[in-house]
Amino acid sequence: MHGVQTLGDGQALIDTLTRTEGRRAVVVGAGYIGVEMAEALIQRGYDVTVVNRGKEPMSTLDPDMGRLVHEAMTGMGIEMVNDTEVTKILTGEDGRVSAVVTEEAEYPADVVILGVGVRPETELARAAGLPVGEYGGLLTDLAMRVRGHEDIWAGGDCVEVLDLVSGRQRHIALGTHANKHGQVIGSNVGGGYATFPGVVGTAVSKVCDLEIARTGLRERDALAAGLRFVAVTIESTSRAGYYPGAALMTVKMLAERRTGRLLGVQIVGREGAGKRVDVAAVALTAGMTVEQMTALDLGYAPPFSPVWDPILVAARKAVAAVRADAD
Amino acid sequence: MHGVQTLGDGQALIDTLTRTEGRRAVVVGAGYIGVEMAEALIQRGYDVTVVNRGKEPMSTLDPDMGRLVHEAMTGMGIEMVNDTEVTKILTGEDGRVSAVVTEEAEYPADVVILGVGVRPETELARAAGLPVGEYGGLLTDLAMRVRGHEDIWAGGDCVEVLDLVSGRQRHIALGTHANKHGQVIGSNVGGGYATFPGVVGTAVSKVCDLEIARTGLRERDALAAGLRFVAVTIESTSRAGYYPGAALMTVKMLAERRTGRLLGVQIVGREGAGKRVDVAAVALTAGMTVEQMTALDLGYAPPFSPVWDPILVAARKAVAAVRADAD
Repeated sequence: MHGVQTLGDGQALIDTLTRTEGRRAVVVGAGYIGVEMAEALIQRGYDVTVVNRGKEPMSTLDPDMGRLVHEAMTGMGIEMVNDTEVTKILTGEDGRVSAVVTEEAEYPADVVILGVGVRPETELARAAGLPVGEYGGLLTDLAMRVRGHEDIWAGGDCVEVLDLVSGRQRHIALGTHANKHGQVIGSNVGGGYATFPGVVGTAVSKVCDLEIARTGLRERDALAAGLRFVAVTIESTSRAGYYPGAALMTVKMLAERRTGRLLGVQIVGREGAGKRVDVAAVALTAGMTVEQMTALDLGYAPPFSPVWDPILVAARKAVAAVRADAD
Repeated sequence: MHGVQTLGDGQALIDTLTRTEGRRAVVVGAGYIGVEMAEALIQRGYDVTVVNRGKEPMSTLDPDMGRLVHEAMTGMGIEMVNDTEVTKILTGEDGRVSAVVTEEAEYPADVVILGVGVRPETELARAAGLPVGEYGGLLTDLAMRVRGHEDIWAGGDCVEVLDLVSGRQRHIALGTHANKHGQVIGSNVGGGYATFPGVVGTAVSKVCDLEIARTGLRERDALAAGLRFVAVTIESTSRAGYYPGAALMTVKMLAERRTGRLLGVQIVGREGAGKRVDVAAVALTAGMTVEQMTALDLGYAPPFSPVWDPILVAARKAVAAVRADAD
């Protein structure tokens, strides 16, 4: 049974795979780590079962978009079991895992990988009286000083950050944020000045040739933030339809009712899909409306995009939905 | 001798290639059309020479970035002749082209392709007294009405558009703009309301596996617009450095002196480089500074980007340059 948080964890997993003869792998959890582990194992020739608590894999997406990931994973030969809780992990007489047990079934396993999420490790900080938020992460100001403590700085996976779209604190364990925190803290400690204004919640991942991306708010995030919205979904292609290698992608876009402000984008597709989410990340940061987005001057040439980039196609449909909603 | 403006031109070229035995092709011009034709011909097994008036190919880039395109084309086996004027195109007794003559040399040719740019065809409009701009394109208002003519609308390659970065009119013959014009005109003529606010000058192209992208102002555009700037260039990779398939890319960024406002980005690289320019296109539209850009929440995962996306690496260097310039 393996977690995969550190380089050491990864090496231990490789050692187990090397010395284990059986080819049945069960992954518990279907978030970034879970689907990436499923990819790694299927590419090594394992029979892979992913056991997932949520309705669909990738709970960082809305379930309708997670459904696309589910279907693609099934198409890759990964067995995907959703909407179920693991109750027990069985161990054989040799002390090694033998099965993963859920409320409904038992999945024999030669190797089990846990990808069940992370929480900030802030026990020491809490014991020292430092402030933590709803998710247990340290609370800092925009210069990454721990709130109320002039001489203590914090960054990386142990802090909560401001979500610029919802206005709420979030905990996001991503290397790209940790790196920015380090740069900001270094500047400030060294007598310079820098801030980390917050995040819009961009993330991108892949499982085999399927690219999965999101930024901003899902439907449930928007509701929790008190926002009313319209949601649209479109299909488009990564290149002009007639160009060799054009690959399908699905784009879902949320826009605020009345104002038409962009609230979030989710993308599931093949090569060239994932990083398109960056356009929406910048638009979110700038507070653009979907109508403003329809005029964006995005790079066009047949090997790179249809004449209307998929993001623009989604924005146009969102404009129509905002208008219809106002009528 | 072939121009390549229309589908018919393309078919005529293919017909010529099919019935011509010789394998020597000369392309006149090294802009988008020129380099794309060079790609098509080299892939068909021709000996390709590109004869170019400019110092480097792709005059839509600054010459230091065009130099990278030059080197890559040479590496692909394309002969690149810069800084020269074509004085004559010779024809044999059979009436077919035989050579391209420049001030310095003569290049034997079995086929000659002209990729020497386009100009708006507005003769009829001018004869009718409609207003045209510096580049000969029709001038419209933001709703795409011809200026001073309530009932005449114009869009596509025959109009000039507002460059949102320089504040000047430009002529850009791109299908993506023409499509947006059509949508705006259709809305307005149909009793709705839409505008085309302008462009930031985004363009993306490729020659074999080299991707070439730009948005905003080149150095000479900025100077012509009365803007003072700092320019930085960085090298980075399309994926995390350790990830299979990580490919080098060079990013050049211009920022305004004092304000640090982003003015332009140019990218030359391999797969995954070109469409990264879209992030800069949105940032330009939003009027962001390079310092604001360093905090952008762009998608990160090792198959998609280094932990600092190349655009962010360039923005950080530009921030340092703006500061150093202010000192």
